[in-house]
Amino acid sequence: MIRFECDYSEGAHPRILQKIIDTNFEQTQTYGEDSYCQKAALLIKDKCGRQDIDVHFLSGGTQTNLTVISAVLRPHQGVISADSGHISVHETGAVEATGHKVLILPGTNGKLTAGQIQAVCDEHARDVNHEHMVQPKLVYISNPTEIGSVYSRSELSAISETCRRNQLFLYMDGARLGYALCAHGNDVDLPVIADLCDAFYIGGTKLGTLFGEALVICRQELKPDFRYIMKQKGALLAKGRLLGLQFLALFEDDLYFDIARHANDMAQLIKEACERKGYHFMIPSVTNQQFPILPDAVLLRLADDFSYSFWEKTDETHSAVRFCTSWATTQEQVKELASAIEQG
Amino acid sequence: MIRFECDYSEGAHPRILQKIIDTNFEQTQTYGEDSYCQKAALLIKDKCGRQDIDVHFLSGGTQTNLTVISAVLRPHQGVISADSGHISVHETGAVEATGHKVLILPGTNGKLTAGQIQAVCDEHARDVNHEHMVQPKLVYISNPTEIGSVYSRSELSAISETCRRNQLFLYMDGARLGYALCAHGNDVDLPVIADLCDAFYIGGTKLGTLFGEALVICRQELKPDFRYIMKQKGALLAKGRLLGLQFLALFEDDLYFDIARHANDMAQLIKEACERKGYHFMIPSVTNQQFPILPDAVLLRLADDFSYSFWEKTDETHSAVRFCTSWATTQEQVKELASAIEQG
Amino acid sequence: MIRFECDYSEGAHPRILQKIIDTNFEQTQTYGEDSYCQKAALLIKDKCGRQDIDVHFLSGGTQTNLTVISAVLRPHQGVISADSGHISVHETGAVEATGHKVLILPGTNGKLTAGQIQAVCDEHARDVNHEHMVQPKLVYISNPTEIGSVYSRSELSAISETCRRNQLFLYMDGARLGYALCAHGNDVDLPVIADLCDAFYIGGTKLGTLFGEALVICRQELKPDFRYIMKQKGALLAKGRLLGLQFLALFEDDLYFDIARHANDMAQLIKEACERKGYHFMIPSVTNQQFPILPDAVLLRLADDFSYSFWEKTDETHSAVRFCTSWATTQEQVKELASAIEQG
Amino acid sequence: MIRFECDYSEGAHPRILQKIIDTNFEQTQTYGEDSYCQKAALLIKDKCGRQDIDVHFLSGGTQTNLTVISAVLRPHQGVISADSGHISVHETGAVEATGHKVLILPGTNGKLTAGQIQAVCDEHARDVNHEHMVQPKLVYISNPTEIGSVYSRSELSAISETCRRNQLFLYMDGARLGYALCAHGNDVDLPVIADLCDAFYIGGTKLGTLFGEALVICRQELKPDFRYIMKQKGALLAKGRLLGLQFLALFEDDLYFDIARHANDMAQLIKEACERKGYHFMIPSVTNQQFPILPDAVLLRLADDFSYSFWEKTDETHSAVRFCTSWATTQEQVKELASAIEQG
Repeated sequence: MIRFECDYSEGAHPRILQKIIDTNFEQTQTYGEDSYCQKAALLIKDKCGRQDIDVHFLSGGTQTNLTVISAVLRPHQGVISADSGHISVHETGAVEATGHKVLILPGTNGKLTAGQIQAVCDEHARDVNHEHMVQPKLVYISNPTEIGSVYSRSELSAISETCRRNQLFLYMDGARLGYALCAHGNDVDLPVIADLCDAFYIGGTKLGTLFGEALVICRQELKPDFRYIMKQKGALLAKGRLLGLQFLALFEDDLYFDIARHANDMAQLIKEACERKGYHFMIPSVTNQQFPILPDAVLLRLADDFSYSFWEKTDETHSAVRFCTSWATTQEQVKELASAIEQG
Repeated sequence: MIRFECDYSEGAHPRILQKIIDTNFEQTQTYGEDSYCQKAALLIKDKCGRQDIDVHFLSGGTQTNLTVISAVLRPHQGVISADSGHISVHETGAVEATGHKVLILPGTNGKLTAGQIQAVCDEHARDVNHEHMVQPKLVYISNPTEIGSVYSRSELSAISETCRRNQLFLYMDGARLGYALCAHGNDVDLPVIADLCDAFYIGGTKLGTLFGEALVICRQELKPDFRYIMKQKGALLAKGRLLGLQFLALFEDDLYFDIARHANDMAQLIKEACERKGYHFMIPSVTNQQFPILPDAVLLRLADDFSYSFWEKTDETHSAVRFCTSWATTQEQVKELASAIEQG
Repeated sequence: MIRFECDYSEGAHPRILQKIIDTNFEQTQTYGEDSYCQKAALLIKDKCGRQDIDVHFLSGGTQTNLTVISAVLRPHQGVISADSGHISVHETGAVEATGHKVLILPGTNGKLTAGQIQAVCDEHARDVNHEHMVQPKLVYISNPTEIGSVYSRSELSAISETCRRNQLFLYMDGARLGYALCAHGNDVDLPVIADLCDAFYIGGTKLGTLFGEALVICRQELKPDFRYIMKQKGALLAKGRLLGLQFLALFEDDLYFDIARHANDMAQLIKEACERKGYHFMIPSVTNQQFPILPDAVLLRLADDFSYSFWEKTDETHSAVRFCTSWATTQEQVKELASAIEQG
Repeated sequence: MIRFECDYSEGAHPRILQKIIDTNFEQTQTYGEDSYCQKAALLIKDKCGRQDIDVHFLSGGTQTNLTVISAVLRPHQGVISADSGHISVHETGAVEATGHKVLILPGTNGKLTAGQIQAVCDEHARDVNHEHMVQPKLVYISNPTEIGSVYSRSELSAISETCRRNQLFLYMDGARLGYALCAHGNDVDLPVIADLCDAFYIGGTKLGTLFGEALVICRQELKPDFRYIMKQKGALLAKGRLLGLQFLALFEDDLYFDIARHANDMAQLIKEACERKGYHFMIPSVTNQQFPILPDAVLLRLADDFSYSFWEKTDETHSAVRFCTSWATTQEQVKELASAIEQG
């Protein structure tokens, strides 16, 4: 059985794990106040081309999302998300549990548009009963999206401008950010993101760490007291240096981007195998997640040797599924899958 | 200016107010433990044909909804509602503020169907990641709906059976319940509702009281400690007898139903005036709210003398609006409006 | 049975009720946007000597407290209160239910001191782990306190200065504010309170209204979007004019102060009866609540004809109880009680 | 600089880390549904002598506490804790952020007694206004306590019986449980704890793991849907096997107890050094935390070479501090400290 159902089936990239091994007996400060966290934060600031940002390390994506969103919003405010957004569907109501509504908009290939956001603001402002409705205050986007698509620079700029014009904050969930940054055709980089977003996170868990996400807060007014709220949400890791060490490994030699490129390349091979068989895709993905639509009979046969995520029935005899690659995916594994797909 | 934009523009029905006047100097127990609250509760139990229900008096609809929903659900559970449901749109995220997601389904004329509810349960059960999603546990329906439609007995029975089969609770928002119970063609009464729902409220504010809603809890397991949660949500009125007195006035001579019938009749006159002019309706309403689609030019003219609620643009030159009647609406007022409509 | 256990056993002061009767058939705007609410707000601004304050009308004390506190605090912040503070003990965790800790300090006769508040701030600042602790951000005081004592102007000024020096907000629960303002020896008035506090409320329920509290927000940064949060907490009354009308009645001829003076005077008679018998008091109260310590045998006898609130056992054979007076308390009732006390 | 300020200054015990290294390239199920988590859970069930318990793995102590407490309580219920309890003071209001009050009682050497708990229940039951107060429903104890003391079997039995008699749940925070179980004079073991508590956790972070706590739920009614709530609170680790692997390493050869014994022995050496100098202790601790009271002058000198946690000033010239040992503390380190203490 070779697993393609997600990008976190293995442990950590060896170079990341090695950092943890090498420093295991060192004594350091705790709760993220150690020198490794500091160094990793500095590196990330460099990569973002800005020193005036705050970097915090948290353990997982849901934790990061709920901590940020509850830190940013007042009680009557909500967060706009695409219907496919992770916070909308796959976090067991984590945002609502902190008291806030997720204002759901239909995504297009998983993405929101500036126009949609403006329309929400206009509608809210126009309604005479707007005090009876949740006030939109934060926009949540994922890049890449949960279904593998990527925001272009112009899309992102338009969203950012719309947010600023309407006094909304913009937050990017970067659980798989690296895959977007290294995707074919991508024209966005970390400095651009740090410029256009008020906060975003650089995901580690799905890009080769044991666990861990690096949150970047760009907007001054969102910075104060953030560590208090981390602690309250259980997000201040006692041995915080583990997070610093892993992000140090990821960024000191650009391992983060190497991992992303490798996984994207592996995904491309799967995509091509599907294309050769004439299969369609649920969505044109350029990142490490591919969503081909396959005959159920073929899927049944593949299931003997490969794991994948079921996505949705597309007709009586076909389904969309997800194949996912990672730092750990080998050419051999992908070739086996590709050949199995091509045999049909 | 004659107001038709809602059914709470005036004070209280004179017979209700009289009860408050008559008892003003009496000293009673507080927080709803007085004899008037007890009598009103007994009356309501009689009207529901059951003694094994709990009756609580709260001040308003949003307060009642948020208190019930937060009392019923565990942290990971959510409440299913139509997209037009009051809790979905017009309570500033009150439900989310207690930690729970509103799971929104598209309504048909404001109503949910048993089939939709079953589909949500099936989908949740089937999803391998259901622990990552909010668990549906409560169904919220409004009767009449926010747009004036009424559930039939068979619709309600089907919903109730679906809920019980799937271990969901069923809660009915009866902010305007009287208007449904007295609507032409309605085949549901209080005993039926008490039998099919696990909790529901009999709205007072929109049926002639100064304020106040009577919550009925029918399901045994939802009863314990409810007054604690009322107090926590600020819903335990110090001079609680005011609520008991008003519901006593409403139910001791069936004033509740007289009020509803009167308002429905007045609304019917408005409906007929619109029909005579050939206007269409956003929805076929049999209760005290009517949603005709009128030319914007006509609406502009009407606005000099009458208030109404704007609902939505239906095309370039027409809009749907709401006309609402109440205990206080007089034949003269309605005739004036009808004649203004007919003059166009 | 004559009730002395609280100051909300009756309905409303007749002049307040009359306002409701007189306007019963008028049609007005809803949700507090009517002209009566506007007039009442203007009157209260005049009484406070300031036009730059916001006035909102809510239904009850717990509701007001939880709405204000949740509007003011960020998630990691808490509210300092005396151990006898209403929010500490008698609101079923209403503040915690909005996510915030009540930081409890021992009160002296129910009061906090500036020194205690400063000490909390110093301790928090000094602690190297302060990010692991709730950040004090709001001070809650009651005036009069829950046990009838009154803050002097110098006490209040010291607290206010301490709060401002430490970036804390100061909020006064004025459930019985009138009784403090009219107490013998009091040197504080509404303009002083509006100057020293960031928010406070003028209680109606315990001073003669059917229900209702007038919240005053003095600090600019606490004003935005407050009505959204009211709606979310179920605190935006549909027929909001009922609140405006009642506060209009209370303030247009200073009825509020007349009521307070009368009740204080009545309480004084009870106090004197106790003193004549040589009874001690749990606390020296100058307001409408008196807490004499009486022999249990006497209390048992009194209970046949009078209701009072049990407070606490003080020794084997004595207990502290509360006698409470109101607008509705008559000289005759008090004389009967006084004579029963003196007969022992 | 040798660090003694806490027991989580280093990475993981080498045998724990080795498990992670050895399995790094294996592909497994995610979110704790892998075979390592299953094996670790089985081992823990064996150690507890019961198969009918649920075992869940979470990342940290605050996270575990807030997840359990919010899963167990209804909105109006609170958790009883000693004033020194971690949830009372050092989790930035994490429990309150989930909506629940911590009902604080004065601890004796950090411990609660059965009598105190019974008194709270009696007082609540007796109060006529108990619906206005938070209902006690859960008792939180730490073993060892935050200041190193240990519950005896008879103390624990009495607390457990009191809880069951009063329908309270009992939850033990075992962040440092191993140190208690291996303490000199301890007469409690895992089967006893599993029998007397309704839920408890076996702490890993402070006993040699990189991170991770093993929660044991013993009471049937607390089990349903727990993983939903874990996900909601951000406590479902994507690469969940990391937790299973670490607890496998801890329990397959009783490494957990070896670690605890070693750290307790090292602490004993520090204790003896202090005793030889005649220093007193804030509390008589038999576990890996020691709280001697030292002259400030000595402390200042020690600070050049050793880190410790400041606890509190005890008089003008003395302070209580904490020295903490762990799996990583060596005899050499302790001897250096002991000799520095003895030199004074």
